[in-house]
Parts: sequence; structure tokens; C-alpha cells
Amino acid sequence: MAGRVDEVMSAIRERIAARTLQPGAKAPSIRAFAAAAGVSKSTVVEAYDRLAAEGVLEARRGSGFYVAGRSPPLALAELGPRLDRLIDPLWVSRQSLEAAPGTLKPGCGWLPSDWMPEDAVRRALRGLARAPHPNLTDYSPPLGVPTMRSLLSRRLAGFGLEAPPDQIMLTESGVQALDLVCRFLLEPGDTVLVDDPCYFNFQALLRAHRVEVVGAPWTPSGPDLDQFEQILIARKPRLYITNSGPQNPTGATLSAVTAHRLLKLAERHDLLIVEDEVYADLEAEASPRLAAFDGLERVVVIGSFSKTMSAAGRCGFVAARREWTEGLIDLKVATSFGGGGLAAELTQAILMDSAYRRYLSSLRERLARARGETLARLRPLGLTPWVEPAAGIFLWMRLPDGLDGGEIAQRALAEGVVLAPGEAFSASRGWRGFLRFNAAQSGEAPIYEVLDRAIRQAGAGR
Amino acid sequence: MAGRVDEVMSAIRERIAARTLQPGAKAPSIRAFAAAAGVSKSTVVEAYDRLAAEGVLEARRGSGFYVAGRSPPLALAELGPRLDRLIDPLWVSRQSLEAAPGTLKPGCGWLPSDWMPEDAVRRALRGLARAPHPNLTDYSPPLGVPTMRSLLSRRLAGFGLEAPPDQIMLTESGVQALDLVCRFLLEPGDTVLVDDPCYFNFQALLRAHRVEVVGAPWTPSGPDLDQFEQILIARKPRLYITNSGPQNPTGATLSAVTAHRLLKLAERHDLLIVEDEVYADLEAEASPRLAAFDGLERVVVIGSFSKTMSAAGRCGFVAARREWTEGLIDLKVATSFGGGGLAAELTQAILMDSAYRRYLSSLRERLARARGETLARLRPLGLTPWVEPAAGIFLWMRLPDGLDGGEIAQRALAEGVVLAPGEAFSASRGWRGFLRFNAAQSGEAPIYEVLDRAIRQAGAGR
Repeated sequence: MAGRVDEVMSAIRERIAARTLQPGAKAPSIRAFAAAAGVSKSTVVEAYDRLAAEGVLEARRGSGFYVAGRSPPLALAELGPRLDRLIDPLWVSRQSLEAAPGTLKPGCGWLPSDWMPEDAVRRALRGLARAPHPNLTDYSPPLGVPTMRSLLSRRLAGFGLEAPPDQIMLTESGVQALDLVCRFLLEPGDTVLVDDPCYFNFQALLRAHRVEVVGAPWTPSGPDLDQFEQILIARKPRLYITNSGPQNPTGATLSAVTAHRLLKLAERHDLLIVEDEVYADLEAEASPRLAAFDGLERVVVIGSFSKTMSAAGRCGFVAARREWTEGLIDLKVATSFGGGGLAAELTQAILMDSAYRRYLSSLRERLARARGETLARLRPLGLTPWVEPAAGIFLWMRLPDGLDGGEIAQRALAEGVVLAPGEAFSASRGWRGFLRFNAAQSGEAPIYEVLDRAIRQAGAGR
Repeated sequence: MAGRVDEVMSAIRERIAARTLQPGAKAPSIRAFAAAAGVSKSTVVEAYDRLAAEGVLEARRGSGFYVAGRSPPLALAELGPRLDRLIDPLWVSRQSLEAAPGTLKPGCGWLPSDWMPEDAVRRALRGLARAPHPNLTDYSPPLGVPTMRSLLSRRLAGFGLEAPPDQIMLTESGVQALDLVCRFLLEPGDTVLVDDPCYFNFQALLRAHRVEVVGAPWTPSGPDLDQFEQILIARKPRLYITNSGPQNPTGATLSAVTAHRLLKLAERHDLLIVEDEVYADLEAEASPRLAAFDGLERVVVIGSFSKTMSAAGRCGFVAARREWTEGLIDLKVATSFGGGGLAAELTQAILMDSAYRRYLSSLRERLARARGETLARLRPLGLTPWVEPAAGIFLWMRLPDGLDGGEIAQRALAEGVVLAPGEAFSASRGWRGFLRFNAAQSGEAPIYEVLDRAIRQAGAGR
């Protein structure tokens, strides 16, 4: 038993080190941990007692064990508003990226490896290896590989957006594109508007820019424009960051009428907009885009192919107003110089491979089936969709009986299932009764068993 | 006086553009500015009055001058036609990256493509394309591919530096590594110490972080420690950024005694240090490293393989104090998520290929020959080396007759030759009588013809 006790102690210490268990957080219940780790409850009790003796955990009478102490100062934690840090905007990212192989990740934001077009990537690698004059070793020009920018320009034209190649700058990822735009347009202390809920990493990135983040309530056809305008008046945000295509996390899309009215508000209140089209290829028919109405006047488009092609060899881009190009280039050179050429060549080769178009078409069908199947398995557990998305990988599901998504996620994590609690997506820390599901990562039966158990336990604990 | 007034006005505008002076901030006092710039107080008064008339500054009665309004988007450099671009820290980068194929670039900071190990890159690409279980499409864990981190750990041990794999984080480039460290350690308004002269992009990057940059004079054996300490006392910098191995631009290396004394000063004044080892592989015998003396206590090591392997598929890293790992990971996830896996696998494959070690060995010999040949061609034109480097690609050359490197560089650029003027490397805008030469990019005869002509014309024009 001594060896097992040590194992449990190590596991808890590791979770604390990895911040999946934060200071002040409740340790997994003894019963849940014993079941998940396949050890007896007395082993877990012994391990927790010893960790308490070491000062790692604190026993609270009648309530269980809690992680002791204060966390060391972390840059992003200091920058943000005080959170209890149980569920923060980095929670889902860290859990998903650090999950051991085989962990079930219905909360994660990308496709499983075996859904990705690996053959197309292999073919492109072989092509690069034997190309007569590839750029395999040199820096790229600051805007990025010209042929790839021309290809992106034609691609954006297909979405009704006129973006000449010299207004497109390649980046090493979509998030780098957003980071550069924020560096260019924002000052510490500025206010930035996001959707509530929105992709949690927008919030994490904005914290690193030391700006205030305010959320405008999102509806099934876009932002609630009355509240949006009130925020423009009261808080004077410099920038609004949103998705085009199926929104993360809700899967809802912008309606044409909302897009048009939103742009009029933006003009009246001198608001700049970033539209992230990273999930664009998941739509068979493109939903309305702010940039197409606006013509890159006050809308900046960013995107990448990390979600449908490769996250290991990424190529992102930003398309913006012509007079911003020089400033964006200077920032790119200063903070990342002229790299990313190999990934750009690779991405270009895959985009030009007709197998990729066929892959996208079958991916959309496969996702539609997966969304249907996931919904059919979640409904019997009492979860209901906020909207039924027409495209994409996400389902935004309301928990039954006002249960808290954070609590459900913590319980599921103790059993090896990474969920995405609503709170992590909300600048107002609302949407606590929601979970985001990735339909492509929700095929395994144990997910629903763990979820069912977590829901029952959370319900019983109240 | 008119010229001096213009200079003061430009200096203030540059500070506002670089945001070392923020909107609402008080402009430097007239007396202090006059003393620092070596001009009369009436010159500064005239300049401030004109800037107030332009609406750039606001005069507040009895209180002085303040920066007006909200600033335009962050401009790292003044914009303008490329050839007329002022010599600033981005000048050499932009000229080198944007040069048309065939342009002669003795001022650029990297090897010509045909000096790079293209065959090794092709071999590694083929290997990845056919590997049984490569990660070609997924995100990487936040610290980066574990096998590559172990390899880096062993590599650093070869330089006498103990850095366990869990204290090493992979990045998408060396500059991204530095950027993350700056994000983690610096606040806007902090002071950062660099060598004078130093790699110009350190200055450009630091501008993007809105910090004050101060240079400590560099000598052939490292920083001038008396002046270094005076700066520590007077300016209390948070961070010092320097190179290990042959310094950029001088090619000089740190002596062991200077390294030891510098670390004692750093301890006494609570200074943190970043040591950039991007040119490390160019030394046959490693010169003293601050990190090896310090053991990652107050020294952070950053590096990449962009200069000797591939700048198109880059893999960088940061090795730092263990308790900083979590904070650095959060910032990496927030600002670039978990990418770069493909380039990391590629870099790992090349590092493990014995052909790469043979390549490095012959590269060092080839560079030694090229340095000798370049010196032999520059001396007859009146240029003299500040030091004769034992390794690396750079020669730091003094121009004859007190000629200005910026003027020579502008003249050469008009004839299609990119030079690197000393001023671009200097936080104090000194070293104007110097040029940096890249021995590997200096083989073409026309370089010396253009240089000779530029020197004669500049001499005659005075």
C-alpha cells in the first residue's frame, strides 16, 4: 500500500504544479479519486492525510481536503481581475494541451488527430523535400511568401471580401495575428469588447495586453445590439473581437441584419473590429461577414488553418487597412522577425491539393452527423442546446437544474475527462450553467458515464 | 538653430511614436532635455512651442508640456518611402528581409542560402513524411515536444549549463523566446540594459514593450563594468539582455573574469539577465557563459537554430528558473497557443543527424577564411576592425576619416548594396563611424566597388 499512497501523493502534487488544482481548490473527493485511480479509499485517505501533514493540503472539517496556500505570482494572474482562479480563461487550454494520451477531451477546441488530413500533410512534406527551389532555410519577406498571400487573397474574395495580397500579412498562427493587431491598436488600460460568451483565449490574450475586457451578451443571431451600443457609450472600447462563421463556443452565426447594424454602430462610435475566421472552412455556405460589408475599413480579418489542416505546422494571416501594413510589419519583425516560411509553403501546397477540398466536404458531413449523435446522447442526461448550430464542431449545452459547469468539470477531470465549463468563456463570469462540447471529441461512451455521474453527484451535493 | 529645433521636435515625435512618451504624459523638462541633448534651453522651448502649435503637445500653465490626445497606432518607426527610411533599429532588418533576389547584403545578419544545410533539411522533411507516428497535425504540449527538450538539455550541459528538460520551454523562434521573457518580467516604463552596440532587434523588440532602453558601453572582453555599475545605480534596470558566444555586432566575447564580476554586480543590484545564444554553434570552443556560472538563478538562456540550420522552419527555446515555468507557459498559451511541433520535430531530426555536426565544423572553417578575406578587402578602403573575432560571421569595422555609417549605407543602398550602419546598433545613437559586415555575405567584388565609391563621395561632400 505504501507504493500506492506515494503514487496518489505524487499525482496530487503534479496537479497542483500543473495548476489543474489551484490553491484554495477542493481536492478530488476521496471516493471519486479512489474509483478513478483504481485504489482503495483508505489509500487515498492516507495520502491526503500525509499531504496535509506536509502542508500541501488542508483538511476542513466536514468539507474535505483543499489545496493549501497562495499561488506564486503569475504574470497573467496579476494582470487580470482577481479571480478565485478555479476556472480561469486558461483552464481549458491548459487541460486540453497537457492531457495525457488517451484522455477524453470533449471540452477541447480542436479535432482529434485521426480526423485531421494527415495524408495531405505527408504528401506536402514529400513535395517540399523534392521541390527544385523551395525556401527551406531562408527568412521570408516581412509580409510572408507572396504566392501564399495571393492564394489567400483569392480565397477571401470567395467570401466576398476584397483583400489585395499587399494588404495580407502572413503570421505563424491565428493567435499571433491577433496578438500583433492588439500590439498595434491597443494601449494598456484600453477597453476591449468581446462576445459573452466568447473563445476563452481572447480573454487570456487580452490580459497579457493589460487591457480591460468587457463582454456584450451574444444572441443566436449575433450580439445584443442594444446592450452593445450601451457599452460603446459607457465604456468607449477601442476594439471588438469576434468570430466569423460558427461562433466559439455557441456555434451561432451572425445574421446579415445584425452585421449591418453593428457596423453602423461601430462607425458612429469609432470602434475597430477584429473578425477571426479560424472555423470558416467548416461552413458549406458562408454566413455573413463584417469584413465583407465593411471592406477592411474598420474590420481586420485574422485566420489560420490550424483547425482543419495542421496545428503542428501553422500558418496564420491578418488582412487589414493598407495604411496599417507598415506598422504591422515593423511589429512582426521586432517580435518574430521573418520566419514561418516553411509552414506557409506547406499550407499553400495543401490548399492547392484537390484532396483537401474533398476532405473538407466530407469533414462537414461527418461533423453534422457527430453533432446530431452528441445531442442525442446529451439530451437524456438533461442537457439542452442553446441553439442547434448549422455548422462547426461546437455545441453549447445548458446543464439541468441550474448545476454549475465548473463543478461538473472538476468532477469529470478527476475521472480523466476534460470538459469546458461555461464560466471560462465569459468575461462577466456568467454562463455558469453551460458546458461547451466538441462533437468530434465526444464519441466515446465513458464520457457520458462520467458526465452522468458528475451530474448526479453535483445534484446530490446540494 | 532651426536644424536643432527640428531635431528636438523629431526626437519628441519619435518618443511618442515609440510610446516611451504616452498620451497624457509629461514631456521631459526643458532643462533636462536641453542638458541631455546638448542644446540650449531656448531651442527646446521653441521646439515644444511648435509641437504645441501642431497639437502634439499641450502646454499647461505653470506645469509644463504634456503629450496630447490619444496616440495613433503603435508606430515602431516613422513611415516613409523605403529608401528614405531613417536609420532606426528596424532599418537593417527591413532592408535585408525585403531585398530583391540578387541584392548584395553584406549588412545582413544571416548566412546566404547556399551556405545553409539544405540537404539536411530535405532529409529531415522526407523522414517526417514517412515516420510511423509523427505529430504532423496536433497541437504540442505547452512546454513543447518532450524529446526535443531532452536533447536541448543535453546540449546545454555540453556548455556547462544544468537545465533539466522541465525548465526548458520550446518556442517558435529565438525572438519569440525573448518576447515571452519580456512579457513575463517587464512592465511598461521599466528600464532595460543592453550592450552598446548590440543587436538592433533587441531595441526594436523592447520598444514594442514600451520600456526605456539604456546601453552600457561594450569592450572587447564584455561590458565596461564601471559604467555598467553606474547605470545599475542610477537607472535601476530590471533586465540586461546580451549575447553569449560571439557578440552581435562586434564579434567580441565575454571574458571569464568579466562574467564573474558582472554576475556579482547583478546579484548586488537585483538585476535579471537574458543571454541569447543564437550564434553559439559558430564557436569551436565555447566562450564563458553567464548562465553556466549562475545556474539559471538570475540568468535566462534563449536560443534557436535559425542561423545555422533553417530560418524557414524555426525552433527556439527558453531555459529559466523552475518557478517561472508556469507563468511562461500561461503567456505562451495565451499569445501563441501550442504550435511549432512540426518545426521542433524537424530541428530535432537535423540535430541528431551526424551530417549536421560535420556541416558545422566545415562552416566554422569556411567562416574563418571568409573573415580573413573580407578584412583583407576592407583594409585597403581604409576600414579597420575594432577587434579581430575568433569566431562568428561578423566584423565590426571603423570607417576612415570619421565618416558616418548611415550616410555610407544610404549611398550604398541606392546602388543595391545593403550595409549595416553602426548607429542602428546603438541605444545612445553612437558608433556612427562603424559598419557591421557579414563575412559570409561579403564575397562579391561589386560590394567593394560600391563601398569605395560611397566612401569617396561622402568624404568629398564634406
